Amino acid sequence: MSSPDRPPLPTRADFPYRLTLQMRWGDFDMFGHVNNVAYFRYYETLLVRFLADELRLNWLTDPVAPFVAENSCRYIRPIDAAPDKGCGEQIDGALRVEHLGTRSVRYGLALFWPGSDTPSATGHWVHVFVDRQSQRPVPIPDRVRAGFSRFRTGGDQGEGLP
Amino acid sequence: MSSPDRPPLPTRADFPYRLTLQMRWGDFDMFGHVNNVAYFRYYETLLVRFLADELRLNWLTDPVAPFVAENSCRYIRPIDAAPDKGCGEQIDGALRVEHLGTRSVRYGLALFWPGSDTPSATGHWVHVFVDRQSQRPVPIPDRVRAGFSRFRTGGDQGEGLP
Amino acid sequence: MSSPDRPPLPTRADFPYRLTLQMRWGDFDMFGHVNNVAYFRYYETLLVRFLADELRLNWLTDPVAPFVAENSCRYIRPIDAAPDKGCGEQIDGALRVEHLGTRSVRYGLALFWPGSDTPSATGHWVHVFVDRQSQRPVPIPDRVRAGFSRFRTGGDQGEGLP
Amino acid sequence: MSSPDRPPLPTRADFPYRLTLQMRWGDFDMFGHVNNVAYFRYYETLLVRFLADELRLNWLTDPVAPFVAENSCRYIRPIDAAPDKGCGEQIDGALRVEHLGTRSVRYGLALFWPGSDTPSATGHWVHVFVDRQSQRPVPIPDRVRAGFSRFRTGGDQGEGLP
Repeated sequence: MSSPDRPPLPTRADFPYRLTLQMRWGDFDMFGHVNNVAYFRYYETLLVRFLADELRLNWLTDPVAPFVAENSCRYIRPIDAAPDKGCGEQIDGALRVEHLGTRSVRYGLALFWPGSDTPSATGHWVHVFVDRQSQRPVPIPDRVRAGFSRFRTGGDQGEGLP
Repeated sequence: MSSPDRPPLPTRADFPYRLTLQMRWGDFDMFGHVNNVAYFRYYETLLVRFLADELRLNWLTDPVAPFVAENSCRYIRPIDAAPDKGCGEQIDGALRVEHLGTRSVRYGLALFWPGSDTPSATGHWVHVFVDRQSQRPVPIPDRVRAGFSRFRTGGDQGEGLP
Repeated sequence: MSSPDRPPLPTRADFPYRLTLQMRWGDFDMFGHVNNVAYFRYYETLLVRFLADELRLNWLTDPVAPFVAENSCRYIRPIDAAPDKGCGEQIDGALRVEHLGTRSVRYGLALFWPGSDTPSATGHWVHVFVDRQSQRPVPIPDRVRAGFSRFRTGGDQGEGLP
Repeated sequence: MSSPDRPPLPTRADFPYRLTLQMRWGDFDMFGHVNNVAYFRYYETLLVRFLADELRLNWLTDPVAPFVAENSCRYIRPIDAAPDKGCGEQIDGALRVEHLGTRSVRYGLALFWPGSDTPSATGHWVHVFVDRQSQRPVPIPDRVRAGFSRFRTGGDQGEGLP
């Protein structure tokens, strides 16, 4: 799926937030590698932990909370079971803030096999901040915005975000 | 997340293949609606059944098989539990072939709440056909290509596909 | 795992409630058959639909709601992917009420491959009814108890239930 | 669900193998605590890692491999999301060998909330060892049996096992 205008693949150093994710037997499918849906489960775990640990955001109780507007994944190389064990153990997740709009944020995501600096997959995820009462989009709270700024890097590829 | 240059939302009539998907309690998350990862599980079920039932493709044994290259989802309205039941029962999935390349195909996907003609979500999915032995991309077999052609509709938005 | 004092396997006719369950690609694991955890997902779907459709129970809002106290599964024969399709499509779930206590109910569960009258798996599930406010076990509401009675059959193997 | 003849709850010290399990947002359901099916996913992860790390068993390639014959879970207290974070992070899994038969093994399992010595849940799991070629139960290989012996403890509650 390479093409002349594809941007080069990011490496670990391009992502300021990283978390090792524990794999589960059920993440693998009949083909013997991690099922594509599980990649989104990994991305989600990465996001939930990032928002809780780094930004002190509690999306069950905060009056303004992020809702997923869109997400995607690009599969670069299969994530196989470890050949000596019959199952994978862990994969390294990576996250950066690629665009910070008034009411939304776009993250860049990646998964790296332990020891490798070429991603097995990359992805993106857009959160829109919503007032829990009105269910309407609202500006990202200042404290959260300041947190996002610390993890911002990479090309500003999300200019159209509101 | 609307913007001036967003294409209008598709309706059911835009998708030649449709399948009703059975929902599960575990598809719902703490927010009380279907978790975003489950949308990809729905899309996958739709694709697996489409390829088996309509194209007679057996991706466990066919010498040339589709691999996921990328996929995405755009979330338009939450899929809630049925208010009178405490859980959802079913959601209608829809699929069309949006672009047919030499070695890859791009599907357009959507989920419709029963009775509604506005999608709850739209998505896309790209399959690259790979020779199982060499693990290299190869042309889509003629029989499969003919099958895809019967479900092709919509704008040719995937021109860059190989 | 047969033994002299195992009860004989039940057949479809032993279960007054039945529901066809849609399978998903992700239910299958690296061994090529349905992963054992997915059996519990099937049982849960069966229970949620039984309680909503047959007993008009809404466990998100009813003041008294069932909580799982224990469950189990016995695996009799693997559930394979359909050989001509590369994936399974559906499996038949079956449920009966095996014991009806004051504050708890024990269900007998089974999964049948379409066309077969020998179960692929059997299981049981115990619900204790809890007052949502006090979080304490309370008697099963009369209306619900009457509903359970209509689906009661099989040996009274749960005598120790409260 | 307590009864006069229930054995007392085990504590961490009763289990010679322990592994911290990473929780995921999708493990939680609409009730705001870990869904009962996810407990089996935790048990499975515990077993897969135990067999690979401690017994050097490769169940994808070894000529004799364990198949699940039955499993169960008893739910003692709900596993809630961490109140300050909006999601749980980790739970401690524990395993012991409760019975070692000729062709099968019975594990005792438990989940402990970090810092607690009372289990949130207990369970059991029975593996029968099967010859991959003949698909028939066979004696547990000596090397594997020796490994199990190192983790054996607890009452011999599985006397009926073959």
